[in-house]
Formats: sequence, structure tokens, C-alpha cells
Amino acid sequence: MLIRIGFEIQIDCPKPTPMLLALHPNPEIKLRIIGSDRIRAEPGLRIDEYADAYGNRCARIEAPAGKTTLWSDCVVEDDGEPDVFDWNARQSEIMDLPADTLTYLTASRYCESDELAETAWRLFGTTPPGWARVQAISNWVHNNVVFGYRFGRPTKTAMDVFREGTGVCRDFAHLFIALCRAMNIPARYASGYLSDIGAKADGAGDFCAWAEVFLEGRWYAFDPRHNTPRIGRILMVRGHDAADVAMITAFGNYLLTHLKVWTDEIDRTLSEDEVHKLLETPTAGDALVLGPARGIS
Amino acid sequence: MLIRIGFEIQIDCPKPTPMLLALHPNPEIKLRIIGSDRIRAEPGLRIDEYADAYGNRCARIEAPAGKTTLWSDCVVEDDGEPDVFDWNARQSEIMDLPADTLTYLTASRYCESDELAETAWRLFGTTPPGWARVQAISNWVHNNVVFGYRFGRPTKTAMDVFREGTGVCRDFAHLFIALCRAMNIPARYASGYLSDIGAKADGAGDFCAWAEVFLEGRWYAFDPRHNTPRIGRILMVRGHDAADVAMITAFGNYLLTHLKVWTDEIDRTLSEDEVHKLLETPTAGDALVLGPARGIS
Amino acid sequence: MLIRIGFEIQIDCPKPTPMLLALHPNPEIKLRIIGSDRIRAEPGLRIDEYADAYGNRCARIEAPAGKTTLWSDCVVEDDGEPDVFDWNARQSEIMDLPADTLTYLTASRYCESDELAETAWRLFGTTPPGWARVQAISNWVHNNVVFGYRFGRPTKTAMDVFREGTGVCRDFAHLFIALCRAMNIPARYASGYLSDIGAKADGAGDFCAWAEVFLEGRWYAFDPRHNTPRIGRILMVRGHDAADVAMITAFGNYLLTHLKVWTDEIDRTLSEDEVHKLLETPTAGDALVLGPARGIS
Amino acid sequence: MLIRIGFEIQIDCPKPTPMLLALHPNPEIKLRIIGSDRIRAEPGLRIDEYADAYGNRCARIEAPAGKTTLWSDCVVEDDGEPDVFDWNARQSEIMDLPADTLTYLTASRYCESDELAETAWRLFGTTPPGWARVQAISNWVHNNVVFGYRFGRPTKTAMDVFREGTGVCRDFAHLFIALCRAMNIPARYASGYLSDIGAKADGAGDFCAWAEVFLEGRWYAFDPRHNTPRIGRILMVRGHDAADVAMITAFGNYLLTHLKVWTDEIDRTLSEDEVHKLLETPTAGDALVLGPARGIS
Repeated sequence: MLIRIGFEIQIDCPKPTPMLLALHPNPEIKLRIIGSDRIRAEPGLRIDEYADAYGNRCARIEAPAGKTTLWSDCVVEDDGEPDVFDWNARQSEIMDLPADTLTYLTASRYCESDELAETAWRLFGTTPPGWARVQAISNWVHNNVVFGYRFGRPTKTAMDVFREGTGVCRDFAHLFIALCRAMNIPARYASGYLSDIGAKADGAGDFCAWAEVFLEGRWYAFDPRHNTPRIGRILMVRGHDAADVAMITAFGNYLLTHLKVWTDEIDRTLSEDEVHKLLETPTAGDALVLGPARGIS
Repeated sequence: MLIRIGFEIQIDCPKPTPMLLALHPNPEIKLRIIGSDRIRAEPGLRIDEYADAYGNRCARIEAPAGKTTLWSDCVVEDDGEPDVFDWNARQSEIMDLPADTLTYLTASRYCESDELAETAWRLFGTTPPGWARVQAISNWVHNNVVFGYRFGRPTKTAMDVFREGTGVCRDFAHLFIALCRAMNIPARYASGYLSDIGAKADGAGDFCAWAEVFLEGRWYAFDPRHNTPRIGRILMVRGHDAADVAMITAFGNYLLTHLKVWTDEIDRTLSEDEVHKLLETPTAGDALVLGPARGIS
Repeated sequence: MLIRIGFEIQIDCPKPTPMLLALHPNPEIKLRIIGSDRIRAEPGLRIDEYADAYGNRCARIEAPAGKTTLWSDCVVEDDGEPDVFDWNARQSEIMDLPADTLTYLTASRYCESDELAETAWRLFGTTPPGWARVQAISNWVHNNVVFGYRFGRPTKTAMDVFREGTGVCRDFAHLFIALCRAMNIPARYASGYLSDIGAKADGAGDFCAWAEVFLEGRWYAFDPRHNTPRIGRILMVRGHDAADVAMITAFGNYLLTHLKVWTDEIDRTLSEDEVHKLLETPTAGDALVLGPARGIS
Repeated sequence: MLIRIGFEIQIDCPKPTPMLLALHPNPEIKLRIIGSDRIRAEPGLRIDEYADAYGNRCARIEAPAGKTTLWSDCVVEDDGEPDVFDWNARQSEIMDLPADTLTYLTASRYCESDELAETAWRLFGTTPPGWARVQAISNWVHNNVVFGYRFGRPTKTAMDVFREGTGVCRDFAHLFIALCRAMNIPARYASGYLSDIGAKADGAGDFCAWAEVFLEGRWYAFDPRHNTPRIGRILMVRGHDAADVAMITAFGNYLLTHLKVWTDEIDRTLSEDEVHKLLETPTAGDALVLGPARGIS
């Protein structure tokens, strides 16, 4: 399956502002890519790439004063399979977990698993350990949090989401992760592109946040906002939570004035040349309607 | 300078409880060690060592139901120099920071640098960047937070410390770190042993938390609780904050019933044999007087 | 205009539980009443009426263990006029306010006008004082808070409503009141019956909370949830906020298992006898669908 | 016993600022007063007295731009008896409480008795109802809150005091009141003068806040900060909490630049003429050392 992924972001800075960008497809996925998955900028500026401690491919820029457009556009080949679902996946005892998963058991900036421990055991203590327990957590978050862009704010934590019952996709992920960790199940944050293939489209494209949970020797994707296996999930970054892998981490104020994201299936019979041709034409989708000063993360 | 370091911890668990321990001297310091710096347990139990993502030497155990004593006792050779103090150390521009320091610019579980940004710039925005600014932050924390064991609690964050004006050493460190990050200065959490050499003793020994700040190409120790260069600081662990490197991370309830920590200078003319002899006799210091159910971290 | 008002409440108590009820039409309104506006109970129990410090007619009961049904049902004659709207009503200087309005300028349990002062002046500082300013506050609350029963909780305050952007009618009222007080305009809490006359029905009947604001020598009703003058608003109670005048204040746990409220216009040509006849038949409306353990206030 | 009471307050306003003052001896105490207990001002300004809903004698002023000094100075005759202590005073059932005490059972701005209910029952549920239970609450607050002027802030609530373990006298009172109400015991806030007679002096004089609790048919003073019966407690105001009866409620910013309060026993053999003479000379005590911009309440 061929999927065209990309974004167009316009920011406006009152003065030159350093920024970290977490906007590349993840190097671990080893997808075949047609075209370039690099970030490009207008006006042109230096883009230093580096790998962070999680192996994410990041970039550091200094956005100039005024408007800057950042974009990327390429086609990736995806296996077209939905998220893996294994109802029988067992949960490891803490003593048996790989050492590098232990760090995903403790609280982080947006996932106060310590404060949610009592709640988590009260709600899910009687579910069977393993996939069923994780699924119960995902179901609960899906059913008890109302989605809405107006409910997002940069400092909103899992505790806030639990109390308020509202949020954007990253908030669904944070609450889900905190509850999993509170139940001694390693859980981490992920974000990237998510296509509408096989699902009903829900408005203008956007990046999407979800979670990964460690069960029976591997990490599985769970997406408590949609709460159903999806096709065309293209990972960009992973970390403890959004504090580690915000799309844009700016060291100074800026306005996000335009955000358009696309994740579109394209005709798989196209030749590589035809795909390159296609990439020369803009995509058809809508940009997100933004409030006057939305910061993204 | 020879310093005898060690601890004796007694815990009481209602049932077998997995625990992560961050209680070894840090492998990066390359101190000469006489005796063993390993953790020992009574009753005997399996202790699995592993290195975490920060290079800290950690251990995983399953504490049995009932009382367990954990201890360690050895002598390290320290250069006897006070914490390095370089008033002229400059602050790097964000664009010039090494990539692996960038993660210490963003908010973490206990250090909400995002929420404290306005406060930080209001308080310190007029200080000169570099060591002077960091020192101003350390002075402010030292002067505006009252120390007291009664003021510690496991979920206390930098924002709480700022609002409440009280805390234990880890709280001083968290507030200091959050304020540094809010000013775009990489800062991380450290803890370990701290001797009373050259300082007035302040009661029974304990572990100590401080901070490290990245200025002009290297990390420097800052200790906002004591706010003066100290001798005999033996690093155990580093991380974003105490969530990463709690002394004990327990997956279940437990009581800490006894805590004795020592960091004592010993006669530097002793031969290695005499040091081994010395390590066969208990230290003279006092145990901390604990409340009925203190959890440490 | 004749309006039939009443309620049917079923509660379930694990043991005998004292309760204060604020469920009578307000004695200050001097409406003609056909039938009895007293609270009745099944099983029968003693109902002590008293007037609180605001002149509200309240009742004290001890609900027995098990299920108790409380109800009331009568017809009131209302002038049929919509809420008074006077765009020219001026705001008094604090020095000129009647002494008994001053208490409605300061913060109360659910209306932290002190904490919202900066926000209020930022949002409304440029509006003209008087009705226009109060209307601007009502518009803002109406447009920035999403209504939903699922968003109610007993401890939710004006600050919570501001941050979360969600609530039930009492939350709209609390935020509106706090913002008015922050702008030095006396504001108090009111609740009672509200008919659907001239408005689109919004589901099963319920009690309704609104606010009263003191402008140019008198109190005016403002209803930031609906934000339009309404017909058939029958006042029950007034106070600083819902802490003063909760429908039910229970000194012990209880379940609210059934809640039906009606505010129905009836044929004005009916004779008094025919009205009494009518009161012998149940109303047609629906009961609210309640979660498993909703407490009302 | 003759006690000279008074204060000298200096405020500095950037522009004319309306203020409510709760600074008179309470009219209900019917003390014999020598001299005048009125508030005086320099420069002279209009002072409108009024009684609030609690029967407190209050004043409304408009402080001019610049510095204003407010003062009062008189001698009152007090019976010299310590606070009444009746270990046998019984607690009323809620059904038997006078109706006008019921309002002191529910949560208020600074006393979130609702949020503290679980804590209160856990801590005090096993104490015998009545005076012993109230005393247990007073003892607990006295022993678990650290006094310090630096720990005061205008928005600090009982929940904050509980979590932080620090406060000024009003904070001790708020936590005590919230815990009493959570246990279904009517409790209200009081403040006034408190002499050092029979107690060790604790620094420069200040106003003092305490609480009143309703047991066996009357209100008793409880002072959890000092936690011992005291002599020379001269009531000024009562209310639900400090939100009702702040010393100064200002509708605008101001600086408190000087605060001196005295409560001094004087020679009881003085004639009325000699007392008047005495009142012409300033008192000897110290003013409180204030931070740069302390607001009082």
C-alpha cells in the first residue's frame, strides 16, 4: 500500500527562535520511501538533524523573525495491515521484564501514574492481567473522555484528563499510559501519521498520538481515542510522553498560523516515476482551522 | 582522601514486592573502591544489576514478605576537592548545545519548567546569562525554601515547592532544575552521598539530592539546599528528576523501618588491609528517626 | 399564566441520614399558588421548615434507611413576562452600593473571584461598565463553556470551569458570578424552576441555576447557560453560591435514584377547581436518566 | 481587667481605592469601653459604618491615592477570665441544632469541608463526639501545622494548609473549621485582639484569628494555633471564614507599609481620667516587620 504523508506548517515568530522538531518518520520502521522525508523550509534555513535518546530522528532550527513555512511530502510503502491485535498476549511479571522497559513503569511529566494508582486498581483490579486488562483500560478511556480541539492545552496532564473528562488525542494517550503504568504495565507515548483508510474520515487531517504497551515480549500499539485497529499508522516519534517528543518545542513565543497534514492512500499501481510526478502537485485536503494562537505539541 | 560510604535500610513488605534500587556509586566516576560497593541483603535474595538509560547502575530485586535488610559498605578514594566553581562559565546558545543535553531543557514529572517559565523570567530575567544566572537561581531557592523532613511527600513537584516554600533536599533540587530549564539552561537531577567534611554536621546521615547544570561545555554540580561548594560528594545516580532515579521504586506497598547512611572521612594513612579491617566494624553514626511509614525516593 | 411546578425525587440511604432541603418556591416572590407547595414524603416523616439567612424557605429531615420519595406539585400564577432586560442599567460605584450587597463582592466556596481577577480584567476591562459589561461576561461564559451532565461534579469551582471549559448550569452560573465579582459587580447565585415556554425544549426537565446581578438599584436575573431572556423562571433559593443553597445537603451518603422535575404551562382558562383536579393526575414528562449514584445540588 | 487595644495601619494606594474594614470590637460583646473604639484616619476621610449580615461592625472608606494612616486606640474592661473550657460539652445531633447554626456545617471559600471529609473521619472518627473530638482536632492542627508569616498567602485554603503543613493563625483556624464541619460540628471563623497575658510573648503584636464551635447550646472559642485557653481575647468579627471578614477588603491594589497592633494590660487601679491621659501617649510595642508588599486579611 502506498501512502502519501506530509505536512505544511506555518509559524510566525516575533524574533529568531530556536526550535526542536520531531517531524520525521521513525528510522526504526524501515519503510521504503519514495521522494524525500526531510523537512524543508521557506525561507531556507539550516536544519540540523540529530537522534534523541529514544532513537527518534529530530531536527534543530532557528526560525527567523516573521513567517516561516516548514513542510515535508513523500510516499511510503506500508504493509496495509491493521494494528496487531493479540487478545492472548500475556503480561510479564516485573521481575521478568527487559531492563530497558522498566523506565516506562514510572511517572512522567504528563502521566502521573503515582497519583492515579488507587483509581487504576479500583477500576481495573478485577480484570484479567494481560491484553484484556489493557483493552479494558483503553475502552474506559475511550468511553469516558470527550474529544474536542477546544479541550486541548499544553499543560494538561493525565490527572487533568481524568478529572475533566475531555481532551485531544494526546490526552487520551496520556491518561491511558498513566493507568497502564499504575497497573505495572510498561507503556509509552507515540505519535505520527494516521490514515483514514477503512475508517470514517473525521475532518481535516492532523497528526495523531497513541500509545505503545509492552506485553509478552514486544510493544503493541493501542489507540484509546479510536479504540479500534487501524490501517496506515506511520510512526514518527516515541517517548515517555509528549514532553519528550512534542512536534515543536520552541524556546520562545510563536504563533502557529497554518497546519495541514495529509496521510492519503494513493494508487498502488503507479510507477516510481509517476509517484515522483504526483509529489509535484499539492494534496487536496483541508488545513485545520486554527484559533488565533495555537501551539502544537 | 578516603571516605567510607554505605547504608543500612530495613523495609517491611506485606507480600513479595518487586523493587528497583538506585543505590550504587555511579560507574562514570571511576573512583578507586576498597571493599565492595555491591548491595547486600539479609535474608539473601537475588539481586539483578542493570544499567539504565542514563548509565546509572541499578538493581532489581523481589523483596520477600516480612522484613528485609539491604546494606552496602565500602571505602572510596576521593580527590578531596570541593565542588568546582567557575564564575566565568558561559551559557551556550540553544543552537550550540550538544544534542544529548537538549532533553534536559524540557519539563519532567517533578520539574514543570513550562508552568514556571513566566515566574523564572520575572525573577531572573535581568541577571547576566551563565554562571551568575544559575547562581542567582540557586541563591533564590536556598533563601526561599525552608528545609524540613516533615515537608517531604512523594508527589511534591517544583510548582508545589515554589508555592509552599518548604521541602527536603530533593525539593530544593527540583525547583532549581525547573527554574534553570525555564531559562533555557540544561539541568538534571543527581543524588548520592555527601560528607560533612568542612561543613557543620546536620544530624543523622542521609542521602542527598542536588543538581547538575550544563555551562560552557560541561556539567557542574549545584546544590541549592546547601548553596556552597562541598567536599566529599559521591554521585550515585542522575536523571531528569527523582522520578527517574528514586532510591527505591517499589511495585507495591512497603514500610521503610530503618535508614542509616554514612559518608565518613577515614584516616588516609591506613593501609588497604587496615581499611578492610575497619569495614568489619559498624559505623558510629545515628540512624534517621523515621515516622511510622516513610517511603524514600 | 399558570405554570405547574413540582418534582419527584427518590433517594436511597444506607442508614438514617439528616438532610437539608432547599426545594420550596421563594417566599419573596409572592406568587399566587394553587394547591400546596410543601414538600411531601413517602414514607411519611417529620419535615421541619425554617428560613435561612437569605430568607430562603428550607426544610430539615432525617431520611430513614432505605428508599424515600420526596415530592411537591402545585400550580403558580406567573406574569408570563420574560426576564427583565435593561441595556441601560448602570453599575454603582462601590462607595454607593447598599451595604447588604457588599457581601456579594467577595469570593465564596465555588466562586474564587480573587483568583480570577486578572483574567476578568484582561477579558472585560475594555467593555463599558454596567449592563454591557455584565452581558459581555454572560456572552463569554455562554460561548466558552460546553454544557453536559457528564461534566458536573460536586466540588467543581469557577476556576475549574474556566480551565476545563465544561459544566452543568450551576457551573455556568458560578463562573459568571466569579467574573462579575472580580469586576466589582455584586453577583449572587439563584436556582429554581425554568419552563421551556418560548424556547426549544432541551430534554427531560431539571432544576436550573442562574445568577442575579446588582445594577442601578436592583437585582437582575442573568442566565449564562441560556443567555437569552426566558419566560417562566420560578425562583426557589438564593445565596453566595451552590454551597449555600444546594437542593439537598446530606450529612451522610445517599443515592439519588430518581429525579423528575416539571415546569409546565397549563391552560389559563381552567377554574381553580379544575386545577385541583389536574393536580391529581401525574405529569407526562420524563425523568432524568441518572448515572448509578448521582448526588444533586 | 483593663486592656488597651488598638492598631496603626499605613497603606499606600496608587489611586483612590474603596475598602471595607472589619476592625471594630464586636458590638455583641458589650464591653465597657474607655475612649473611642472608632477608626480614625489621617488624612481625614469619610468613614461609613454599617453592620454586615453577621452583626459585625464594619466600615467603608475610599482611601485616597498616596499614603493613608488608619488607627484606633481605646481601653476595654475584660473579665480577665481565660477562654471557657468544658470538657463535658456535648455535641448536638444535626436534627437538634438551632436553624441558624446549620449554615456553619457546609463548605466555604477557605474551608473545603467537603474535600476534607474522608480525611477528617479517618483521623477523628474514633474519638468520642463532643468536646473531646473538637479538642482532638485542635490538637492535631496545632501539632501538624508549622507557624510562619512567610507561609501566609491570600488564597491559601484549608486543603492547602493540610497538604503543606504550614500557615499563619488564620490558616490554623481554617483547617480546624473545615475539619469540624466535615465531622458535622458547626464551626465559624473569628478574629480580633489577643493579649499576651499569662502567655509568653511571641514578637510584635498582631491581630489574631481563631474559631468558634457550637457544642451543647452555645458557641465556644477554640484557638488551634495556641491550643490553650487564653486571657484577653477581644472579638472583632465573625463569619464563615476569612473571605467574609477580612480586616481589609480592597477593591484595587494597595501596599500595606506599616502594621502595629497592641493588646496591653494596663493598671486596673487607674481612674477613668488617668486612662484617658494614658491614651494620649503612644504604646511602646513594636510594629510588625513587613515584606515589601504584604496584603492583610
